[in-house]
Amino acid sequence: MSYAQYTKEQQVAQLAGLKNEYGNILEKKLKLDMSRGKPEASQLDLSAELFAILTPESNVISENGFDCRNYGVLDGIPECKRLFADILGVPKENVIIGGNSSLNLMFDEITRAMLFGVAGGAKPWGQQGEIKFLCPVPGYDRHFAICELLGIKMINVPTTQDGPDMDTVERLVAEDASIKGIWCVPKYSNPTGAVYSDETVARFAALKPKADDFRIFWDNAYAVHDLYEPVALLNLFEEAKKHGNEDLPLIFTSTSKISFSGAGVSALAASDANIARTKKAMGIQTIGYDKLNQLRHARYFVDGNGIRRQMERHAEIIRPKFEAVLKAFREQLAPLGIAEWSEPKGGYFISLEVKTGSAKRVYELAKQAGVTLTPAGAPFPYGVDPEDSNLRISPTYPPIDELTTAVEVLCLCVKIAALEELVS
Amino acid sequence: MSYAQYTKEQQVAQLAGLKNEYGNILEKKLKLDMSRGKPEASQLDLSAELFAILTPESNVISENGFDCRNYGVLDGIPECKRLFADILGVPKENVIIGGNSSLNLMFDEITRAMLFGVAGGAKPWGQQGEIKFLCPVPGYDRHFAICELLGIKMINVPTTQDGPDMDTVERLVAEDASIKGIWCVPKYSNPTGAVYSDETVARFAALKPKADDFRIFWDNAYAVHDLYEPVALLNLFEEAKKHGNEDLPLIFTSTSKISFSGAGVSALAASDANIARTKKAMGIQTIGYDKLNQLRHARYFVDGNGIRRQMERHAEIIRPKFEAVLKAFREQLAPLGIAEWSEPKGGYFISLEVKTGSAKRVYELAKQAGVTLTPAGAPFPYGVDPEDSNLRISPTYPPIDELTTAVEVLCLCVKIAALEELVS
Repeated sequence: MSYAQYTKEQQVAQLAGLKNEYGNILEKKLKLDMSRGKPEASQLDLSAELFAILTPESNVISENGFDCRNYGVLDGIPECKRLFADILGVPKENVIIGGNSSLNLMFDEITRAMLFGVAGGAKPWGQQGEIKFLCPVPGYDRHFAICELLGIKMINVPTTQDGPDMDTVERLVAEDASIKGIWCVPKYSNPTGAVYSDETVARFAALKPKADDFRIFWDNAYAVHDLYEPVALLNLFEEAKKHGNEDLPLIFTSTSKISFSGAGVSALAASDANIARTKKAMGIQTIGYDKLNQLRHARYFVDGNGIRRQMERHAEIIRPKFEAVLKAFREQLAPLGIAEWSEPKGGYFISLEVKTGSAKRVYELAKQAGVTLTPAGAPFPYGVDPEDSNLRISPTYPPIDELTTAVEVLCLCVKIAALEELVS
Repeated sequence: MSYAQYTKEQQVAQLAGLKNEYGNILEKKLKLDMSRGKPEASQLDLSAELFAILTPESNVISENGFDCRNYGVLDGIPECKRLFADILGVPKENVIIGGNSSLNLMFDEITRAMLFGVAGGAKPWGQQGEIKFLCPVPGYDRHFAICELLGIKMINVPTTQDGPDMDTVERLVAEDASIKGIWCVPKYSNPTGAVYSDETVARFAALKPKADDFRIFWDNAYAVHDLYEPVALLNLFEEAKKHGNEDLPLIFTSTSKISFSGAGVSALAASDANIARTKKAMGIQTIGYDKLNQLRHARYFVDGNGIRRQMERHAEIIRPKFEAVLKAFREQLAPLGIAEWSEPKGGYFISLEVKTGSAKRVYELAKQAGVTLTPAGAPFPYGVDPEDSNLRISPTYPPIDELTTAVEVLCLCVKIAALEELVS
């Protein structure tokens, strides 16, 4: 029976019981963290052999003849480009390899657009007065933080499990030339776990923005991060070409959740014109990124299949964690009618929708009980969830026993917040 | 006897003889390169043990308890900060560790200033109309390329072996608030090899710029790159503090010419206010730089002494190359009165001054003979050497036998260009 069907007395009694339970938990002084999408140590151990790939005796010459220890090679060594070309399904000529952070590549792309404009664009974004980005919500807080820092106005776009509401996206970009971009995490979206449907990707590929300098920031962070069978994402790079829209997408990915989160390799894939434009400023910014780490990754993984095998090992470690969270939600929350949640088949997050107006309360209750969640509102532009209903759950980092305890506490907090709302 | 003292007939005869010699060299179809300041392979071999520092069994936890494989730690691990603090003579709290490129750190500092302004500055540089940088010349082409890309107007400032002409620097910054910065390579300047005198550094520390958002870009790329006895540079960080000018300097360095040029670690040292300002935007730009490479470097070098010992080994390799070039200049050019050159005690370059108006001609003659030099003009803003007299010589990369041949050709070209001028 759902809480809503309880009598007032039943609700009050239930709340009293739960608060008692909560009081007992407070005494335990827990210190549990489900706040960030970090791999746990045993996932990092999977790539331990990366440390052994290059030794003092190794040949460190890249396929195109460069000593990877020395200066040179702005856009990455060919064997590493091929690795990313393989998992992204793009020609290796359309890949630039960056440093350890794809977020940094995105930040740099946007600052370059602000300062110099994009390929084919008339003026730098920063010289066009107010400009805007579309932000499918809930989304990735660090994307939104870039826009906020740069003073780019953000417009929320609702999403479903098929991706952003494309009617809204198409209408807005067609009518407003000050809209310069959209943030997308097309596969296992952060935080909903949604995989954009073929129709969604096809509509992105066919987009007709009013702005001639509009870009789709396609953060394919979870391209190969399947928990079960690999799920296919339609290839935006290929699709966009069919519509003469090859300059629209800027595609990003990294090995951060494949090898080492803090010491992986990132990549940008884009059209010839975009790549040429990026390399122009990038060649002033740096002589080149760390080629030894590129070489390590290329030799360790060999090809896309090497990466996919590694991802199966990651899935074995984190799948039970996702399942533990979802089991708790199904058993404890589903019957009460007080929450909904995504059931992702990959990625790093579960999105939990609690009753409207109670997400912040749940966050606070959990925090006081020693369970750190991503702050309510974080997955929204400016940190404001208009419904105050979304919570991003990150199950991967804590050991499973801690995770199980944390989820128990979380479910209790969700119940308390729901009942508080009902009895008030 | 100098060429100028030759009779016209003697000059013509000499030129004919040299052209004959040059013709013979053309037939050899040489392919020699003295164009870039790159270490040679045996210098990179000195750091081979860096590959063995981290193994699959290594403890990869930083001193402050972070797993260096995972996300986290924006500004660098403490053991790596200490390493740079040691060689720069600054507190480790005033150090930020970057990626593999200090050029990238400089580029990012300037773009941040363009977009957001500097600590204590009223407005972003990019919103102040025309802004300017002082550029001691000859200088580092990649510094100037950043200004050119960003549309920052560059003003040449003459230099001596004591550093920039400080009368000019002081006068210009005091009268023009649109001057926002100056590029300095204070030790073994690129390309003159000059080490700023104590007086020069002290005057920088006491500078009174009209702009409240002026910064000294202090690229201490060759901080420990001595060819003979270590040469001391007065500590600008400390000196500036004495004048309440602690926010003026932004100090950069890297291990690019200590460990691996393409895969080292870079650092920024600055005042508390500057560091806080940088971290604010940097924390949006990235989750953090590659901590495993920081850990490798910190554990391999241990401290500043470890670095200084390594630099002695570098000096043993490249000192004979500098000496071979200088010997050729002394023997072949000095008696003819047609050139002057720096005699650096460290760094990566020799600056050669040929007769006014003949640097381009020398570059072309050398190029046709198969000897690649840095293009004449490169060490000047906009690639324009007003005197057309400077050539930057990079002796480190070619093997010594190739270098010797290249210098022979270079001297011949200098002679031909000088005589062409005299007989015309």
